[in-house]
Amino acid sequence: MYEYSHGGNAVFEYGHKHVVDLSASINPLGIPENVASAIVQDVSNIKRYPDSFSTLLREKTSAFEGIDPDCIFFANGASDIIFRLPRAVEAAKIMVCAPSFADYERSARSYGAQICRHMLSKDNGFALDDGLVQAVQAEKPKLVYICNPNNPTGQLTEVALIRAVLDVCKQIGAWVVVDECFIDFTEHVSAYTSKALFNNYSNLIILKAFTKLFALPGIRLGYALCSDKTLIDRLYFHGADWAVSNLAQAAGLAALDDAHVYIERTVDYVATQRHVMIQELTDLGYAVFGSCANYIFFKNPFPLDLRDALNAKDIRIRSCSNFYGLDDTYYRVAVSTTENNEKFLDAISKLREDRSHL
Amino acid sequence: MYEYSHGGNAVFEYGHKHVVDLSASINPLGIPENVASAIVQDVSNIKRYPDSFSTLLREKTSAFEGIDPDCIFFANGASDIIFRLPRAVEAAKIMVCAPSFADYERSARSYGAQICRHMLSKDNGFALDDGLVQAVQAEKPKLVYICNPNNPTGQLTEVALIRAVLDVCKQIGAWVVVDECFIDFTEHVSAYTSKALFNNYSNLIILKAFTKLFALPGIRLGYALCSDKTLIDRLYFHGADWAVSNLAQAAGLAALDDAHVYIERTVDYVATQRHVMIQELTDLGYAVFGSCANYIFFKNPFPLDLRDALNAKDIRIRSCSNFYGLDDTYYRVAVSTTENNEKFLDAISKLREDRSHL
Repeated sequence: MYEYSHGGNAVFEYGHKHVVDLSASINPLGIPENVASAIVQDVSNIKRYPDSFSTLLREKTSAFEGIDPDCIFFANGASDIIFRLPRAVEAAKIMVCAPSFADYERSARSYGAQICRHMLSKDNGFALDDGLVQAVQAEKPKLVYICNPNNPTGQLTEVALIRAVLDVCKQIGAWVVVDECFIDFTEHVSAYTSKALFNNYSNLIILKAFTKLFALPGIRLGYALCSDKTLIDRLYFHGADWAVSNLAQAAGLAALDDAHVYIERTVDYVATQRHVMIQELTDLGYAVFGSCANYIFFKNPFPLDLRDALNAKDIRIRSCSNFYGLDDTYYRVAVSTTENNEKFLDAISKLREDRSHL
Repeated sequence: MYEYSHGGNAVFEYGHKHVVDLSASINPLGIPENVASAIVQDVSNIKRYPDSFSTLLREKTSAFEGIDPDCIFFANGASDIIFRLPRAVEAAKIMVCAPSFADYERSARSYGAQICRHMLSKDNGFALDDGLVQAVQAEKPKLVYICNPNNPTGQLTEVALIRAVLDVCKQIGAWVVVDECFIDFTEHVSAYTSKALFNNYSNLIILKAFTKLFALPGIRLGYALCSDKTLIDRLYFHGADWAVSNLAQAAGLAALDDAHVYIERTVDYVATQRHVMIQELTDLGYAVFGSCANYIFFKNPFPLDLRDALNAKDIRIRSCSNFYGLDDTYYRVAVSTTENNEKFLDAISKLREDRSHL
C-alpha cells in the first residue's frame, strides 16, 4: 500500500562525503548561520511543550508575507497541511494536475476522495493552461491543487490563470490550493505569487515551506495562508496539536531575520547555476522543460537509464518514473552548488561521450 | 470548532522563572544530558531530509522494547499516530473511556467516526473494569482506546482485563489501542504493560512516547508497536512523510543510550515525591484517586476554584473541567521536582488555612 515516492532518501549515504545528492531540491547556499545557532540556543527549551499556535512565528511571518497572523497556519512541514486539507474542507472530489507532487494524491486517497487528474501535456511543455478551468467546470471538484512552480516540471503558472480557476471554484463552492513551496527560488516572484489574489478570494489557500528555501528539510516547517479564518481553525482541528517542535519554531524565527537578503542571494545564485545547467543539458541533446525553480526537469532521448548510470558515479538524481503521467525517460535534478553541478554535468557529459555511437 | 484542550500551554511564561507549571506532566529529572548534546551535534544534518522510516531509531528501540523493528512506527509525537489510526483501520465506530485523553475523541471526530463513550465511575475510583468488555460486545466498535495508566486519573489497568478486551475485539474484528505513554513512570511496569500480549494479539497497538519520559515534549517523538505489519504500512500511508525530524531521531537515539538507568532513577524519584504529595493532599481533605504515574488526580471538596487561586500564586495546575465525565472540582497536578512540589503543597496548604472556616 505505502511506497516512499520522493527524492532525498539517500539517508544512509550521509557519511559518504563523495556522494552528490541532487535528488532533493534544497537551497545550495545551505542553512543560514544564525538559524543553526538559534536551534542550539533553544535546545534547553524542549523540556516544555511547543506553542501549538506558533504565535511568535506567525507574527514574524505576518510581517514577512504582509498577511494577518490569524490567516497563517504552521504545521510539521507543508506535507502535514496537505494531509489535513481534505478533511478540513470535506473534499469528496479532488482535482490534481499530473505530473505533480505525489502527496496531493496520497492524502486524497487517505481521505477517501475521488481523484480527477488534469493531465499536463508534453506538447505544451507541461504548462498549465485554460484546460484546467474547463476541467474544473466539468468535474466540479471540492478541492483543486496547483503547484506553482510545478514539481517536478518547474513550470510557472500565470496569476491570471489561477484567478480564472479561483473564479470558477468560487461559483461551485470549491477551494484552490496553490503550492508555492518553490516559488521563492524563481525570478520575478511578485509577478507569479497568488498573494496578489489573497484578499479577494477566501477560497484560496497558499502553501509555503521553510524546508527548501532555508535548507531545513530535516526540521519540518511549513505553513498555509488563507483569508478564511474558519479554514485555519479547521486545519488546527484536523491534526495533532504541538505539530511544530520548539526547535522548528526557533529555526523559523531566525530564518526570517535576514530572509530578504538570503532569498535575493539564493535567487541570483540559483539563476546563474540553472542557466549553465540548462544550456549544457540542451547542448548534450536533452530536452529541458520549464525549470524556473531550483531544479531542472528534462527528458532523456537516449537509450540509457541515467539514474543507474549516475548512481554508479555516486551522483543521485530523481527519476520521474513514479510521477503519474511521466516515465523513466524523465528526470529531475536539483540546482545545487557550483561544485556539485559541475560534477553532475561532467558525469552526464562523459556518459554521452562514452555512448556517442548511440 | 477547535479548542486547545491540554495542559502545558503557559508558553509565554517561560521567561518568568518564578512560574511553577504543573499543568503538564514531564519527567522532573529533565532532559538527559547526552540527549541535549546529541541534538546540538546533529544540527548540521537538518539540511537533509530525515529518514522517513526512522531506521536507526527503530533498530535501537527494537532492542529496548524487545520487539521486531518492522513492528515499530515512529511519528511526530503519539498524537500524530492517534490522528492516523482511525483512517488506518477505517474505524466507523470508536470506543473511548471517559474521562481520558482528549485527542482520542478529536481524532475520531476528524475522521467522522461514531463515538461511544464508556464512562468510568467515581464510585469505582475511575478504575476500568469488566464493564468495558460488555460495552465492546454491545457496541461493536472498530477501535477501542485504553489509556494505561489513564490520563488524567493515573489508574492502571490489569493485563488480564486488557486481554479480555482484546479477545472480544478479535471476535468482532476490532483493534485495541493501549496508550502506554505514561507507563514507564509507574512502579511494576512489567506487571502492567500489554507487551506481554504483543505476540498473541495482532489487533493490539501499543502507543509510547519519548515526550514525557525523557522530558522532550518540545521535540515530538512517539511510536506505535503492532505485530501486524500491514497496520504499520497503513500508518505510513495515512500521514505525511518525514514526520520525524532529524533532530528528534538524534534525540531518541541518544535517549536510549542509558534508558534503563534513567528510567529507574525516574521511577524512584517520582514514587518518593508522589507518596509525599498524595499524603499531604489527603491530609488536607482532598480526595486522591489512582495516581500511579507522574501526576496526581484529585477531587476538591471545598468551594474554591483551585486553579484560579493557585494561578494567583504563579502555580499552574490542570483543571479537569474540559475532560468529558469530569467537572471543575477535579484537578491533575504533575509530580515535579522536590522544589516545585513543595511550592505547590505549601500554596495549597495555605489556601486551606486561609479558608479553614469553610
